[in-house]
Amino acid sequence: MTVDETLDLLRRHDGFHIITHIRPDGDTIGSAAALCYALRRIGKTAYLYDNPQFGDSYGWAAEPYIAPAGFTPGFTVCVDMADVSLMPEGFKGDADLCIDHHPSNSFYAKNTLLFPEKASCGEIIMALVKALCGLDATAADLLYIAVSTDTGCFVYGNTTGETLQAAAELCFAGARNGYLNKLLFRTSSEARLKLEAQIFSSFRYYHEGRTVISVVTRAMLEKAGAAEKDIQDIAALPGRLAGVFTSVMIRETGKGHCKVSVRTNGVADANKICAQFGGGGHKMAAGCVLECGVGAAAELLAASIAREYQ
Amino acid sequence: MTVDETLDLLRRHDGFHIITHIRPDGDTIGSAAALCYALRRIGKTAYLYDNPQFGDSYGWAAEPYIAPAGFTPGFTVCVDMADVSLMPEGFKGDADLCIDHHPSNSFYAKNTLLFPEKASCGEIIMALVKALCGLDATAADLLYIAVSTDTGCFVYGNTTGETLQAAAELCFAGARNGYLNKLLFRTSSEARLKLEAQIFSSFRYYHEGRTVISVVTRAMLEKAGAAEKDIQDIAALPGRLAGVFTSVMIRETGKGHCKVSVRTNGVADANKICAQFGGGGHKMAAGCVLECGVGAAAELLAASIAREYQ
Repeated sequence: MTVDETLDLLRRHDGFHIITHIRPDGDTIGSAAALCYALRRIGKTAYLYDNPQFGDSYGWAAEPYIAPAGFTPGFTVCVDMADVSLMPEGFKGDADLCIDHHPSNSFYAKNTLLFPEKASCGEIIMALVKALCGLDATAADLLYIAVSTDTGCFVYGNTTGETLQAAAELCFAGARNGYLNKLLFRTSSEARLKLEAQIFSSFRYYHEGRTVISVVTRAMLEKAGAAEKDIQDIAALPGRLAGVFTSVMIRETGKGHCKVSVRTNGVADANKICAQFGGGGHKMAAGCVLECGVGAAAELLAASIAREYQ
Repeated sequence: MTVDETLDLLRRHDGFHIITHIRPDGDTIGSAAALCYALRRIGKTAYLYDNPQFGDSYGWAAEPYIAPAGFTPGFTVCVDMADVSLMPEGFKGDADLCIDHHPSNSFYAKNTLLFPEKASCGEIIMALVKALCGLDATAADLLYIAVSTDTGCFVYGNTTGETLQAAAELCFAGARNGYLNKLLFRTSSEARLKLEAQIFSSFRYYHEGRTVISVVTRAMLEKAGAAEKDIQDIAALPGRLAGVFTSVMIRETGKGHCKVSVRTNGVADANKICAQFGGGGHKMAAGCVLECGVGAAAELLAASIAREYQ
């Protein structure tokens, strides 16, 4: 679908129920809240599905828009959701419309507005909000949350000139970027910092320092008092080390069971490494699951990575 | 001076010697290199003074522009330098022109182009480069380094819509933002990560958790193998903790001698706290020097901060 066709669809319907994905992040929450706000501005009834995981991240942004008990949806919109497998816990129903930026989108909805080259779903929602009711400070704050999250506040490699231009426009429209950045990107729980301290001390080097392997065991999580919300993006931490070609984060998810994340600078192929263990992803970031302890997993990965350098 | 008067001055002179400040950062280096490149593009002779501290940060950006031995300057330009006290080691001479964004600029140069509301000196240099020769990919890379540094890649509270718009324009002109961000903001030495691990473990809480005090001793630096370049911006680390109103970083600079940095959320006045110890700064960020050990310094600071909450 085009933006204009989507606008037409939104204007012709009412009773909007907007759905965020499991493990909701700033892009899905900010996109959903901004769309909900804009639909209300043009006189529609619109609510967010009460994702039971809102409490783990930016639920305060979603809170004013959550559907009351007994709300009967007329039109369901999924935002930033690539597949039905990402539907939030407890949600039952079909998607009338999906608005997304994931290249892997499975076209599960009756209608799909997809821009796979966009760094955020928020940039697509921004175009809709501007056309529906224009940007004001409230919409700009919500869209800023959406636009900034997936690029880690414009620092990751997926940040484009368009992303920065959208952010500039939102600031001009009144987005409180300094305040929001502090909340979103510059605040950590004590448990998170204690966990990072342990991770930074756990690095093991291989292949003359070109590979670093880090582990997070259940004992480390317990010692730090860390919960699921405290371990977001930990896979990126060992990759901060200067001179490293390939970084691996091995997370113990149960006894004899671990989740592996591989990041590379492009010299080694992360997808190829993880595919050997039944996983996959992209050349510079991939993952797999291993049925063994963290120590054995580290040795398996190190051997597989060594072959990539040959 | 205005931008037009500055352009006129640059066009009328030749033999440019461009000076970066002590402890050079991305803003002074990127600004100097971009200006040097643009002056060469319009046929001028232009070089950077060989700041002996280039090696500590982004010297690779300055390297192609460093003046050879025996270069005789015709016109000297200081960039991102608020005062003569910030002249780099070994530099002797006067400043014909200063281009800066610090509100504290002391007007030490014969001519000054000052925009105190800009988040970076790079944004001012960008206007000059555009007028002199236009943006190409090389200029855009150098200006991106300058524009992104002082805002920590657009995350600090000084980031404005104008900063983001400048960054967007540089990306459209060919700046390799993803590659540069990785080098500038997402790469740490092993010593830095080991030091962070120790800092995260050193937090002491006061005033029901509203205050956190962290120390960096010489022993900690030695244990981590950390040098001056590894401790940039460490004062910001304790402020990452959720729920903290005031954060203090106490760095042992010698026996019975320490440097204190205070950051607040605006409830306590950092400037007032530090002024009691002969220091100063702003309401949300200030510093002072204490002639005592780190333990005694922590108690003095905690008592002073307690009075601020009353």
